[in-house]
Amino acid sequence: MPTVRFCFDVISPFAWLAWKRIGALCEEEGAALVPQPVLFGALLHHHGQLGPAEIPAKRDYTFAQVFRTARRRGLDMRGPARHPFNPVTALRLCLPAVAGEHQHAVIDAIFDAGWQRGDDLSDPTALGRVLDGLGLDGDAMLRETRDPAVKATLRANTDAAIAAGAFGVPTMIIDDGTLFWGDDSLDDLRLALRGQDPLDVTRLRDALRRPGDHRPR
Amino acid sequence: MPTVRFCFDVISPFAWLAWKRIGALCEEEGAALVPQPVLFGALLHHHGQLGPAEIPAKRDYTFAQVFRTARRRGLDMRGPARHPFNPVTALRLCLPAVAGEHQHAVIDAIFDAGWQRGDDLSDPTALGRVLDGLGLDGDAMLRETRDPAVKATLRANTDAAIAAGAFGVPTMIIDDGTLFWGDDSLDDLRLALRGQDPLDVTRLRDALRRPGDHRPR
Repeated sequence: MPTVRFCFDVISPFAWLAWKRIGALCEEEGAALVPQPVLFGALLHHHGQLGPAEIPAKRDYTFAQVFRTARRRGLDMRGPARHPFNPVTALRLCLPAVAGEHQHAVIDAIFDAGWQRGDDLSDPTALGRVLDGLGLDGDAMLRETRDPAVKATLRANTDAAIAAGAFGVPTMIIDDGTLFWGDDSLDDLRLALRGQDPLDVTRLRDALRRPGDHRPR
Repeated sequence: MPTVRFCFDVISPFAWLAWKRIGALCEEEGAALVPQPVLFGALLHHHGQLGPAEIPAKRDYTFAQVFRTARRRGLDMRGPARHPFNPVTALRLCLPAVAGEHQHAVIDAIFDAGWQRGDDLSDPTALGRVLDGLGLDGDAMLRETRDPAVKATLRANTDAAIAAGAFGVPTMIIDDGTLFWGDDSLDDLRLALRGQDPLDVTRLRDALRRPGDHRPR
C-alpha cells in the first residue's frame, strides 16, 4: 500500500481545500494518508520566498480564488479572524504525539474552525474550544504543545519536507519521492498513485540540465 | 463584446499552456482577445518576489508539472534551449507595433519554437528564423524591436498590468477589472465571461479587511 505524506500548514487555504479531498482520494486509490504538519513560514524562509499573503496584489487574488473554489465545492467559507497568523500552536496540536488517534478529526476541526467558521487559529482559547467540541481535553492538549519533544517534531517535519523538495503547502509526497504541490495537483497525484504518471522523466532531466541566465533587472 | 487582455511573457511555460487554449475560449464565449506582452521579471521585481525558476526546488517541480500538463494536452514539449533567458526581444516582436496583423501567428510561433521545438528564445538569429518561417521579414522586425517607441510600449504594458493587479503570468484581465492568474484559472475566466462568477464579493471584502500578523521567523 503506497503512502501519501500530506504536508500542510493551517495558515494555507489551499491546504484546507486539499485536506477536504485528500482523505477520499487516498481511500479510493488504496493509499495510506499520513498528515504532516509543517511550518509554511519556515519553508518560505528557507527558499528566500515571499508567501502569497505577503504580496498585497497576490493576497487579494488568492483570497478571491479560494472563495470561488470553496463555493464551487459547497464549502461555506469565511476565512479566519486574522491572517496571516502564527500557526505554531495549531500545528503542534495536529501532531500524532498530541492528537493521537484523533489526529484526522483534530486537523479537520481546526481547519474548519478557521476557514469555515472564522475563528482565530492563533488563539489558544479558540483552539481549546475546538478540541473541547470534539470531546477532547483541550487544556491538556494545549499544555502538551509546550513539550520540547513536540516542538522538535514540528521542526523535524518541516526539515524533512524541505529535504524532500517541498517549497509550499500543501505538498503531497508519495513513498517513491514523487512530490505534488497545491490543491490543483490532486488529479496528478491520483494518476501517479495508479502508476499512470504521464511525466517523461528523460525529457524533464534534459530540460533541467540546460543553462539559464538571470533575469534582467 | 467583452475584452480579455492576455498578459504574458514567453519565458513562462504556463503562459504558453494558457495561450494554446485562450483563443478558442474567447471565441466560444464571444470575447475579444487582446494579447499583451509584459516583462515577467519586472512584475517579480515590483513585488519583491522570486520567480519559480529562481527557487531550485520550485524550478524542478514546475518543469515536471508543465511536462505532465503538456503531455495530457497532446503538446509535444521540449522546453527552450536555455531558461531562464532574456525575453525582451521576443516580447517586443509580439507587440502589434511590430507584428501588426500577424500578431497572433507571431506569438504562437515564438511560443512553440521555444517550448515545443527547443529554440533559444533569447537569440535574435533563432527568432529571425521563426519569423521568416511565417513568411515575414525577420530582419526588419528585429530592427523594429530597437525603436524607442516599441521599447516604451513593452514597459507601458508591464506597468499597466501591475496597475491592474497582476503579479504573475499569464494574467487575464476582463474589461470590468476582474483578473485571473495562471493557466489553471481558465475555467474561472470562462464563468466570469458568462456572468456566472461564483465570487461572493461581500465575503471577500470582509476577509481582506481583517487584521494579520507577520510570519514567525
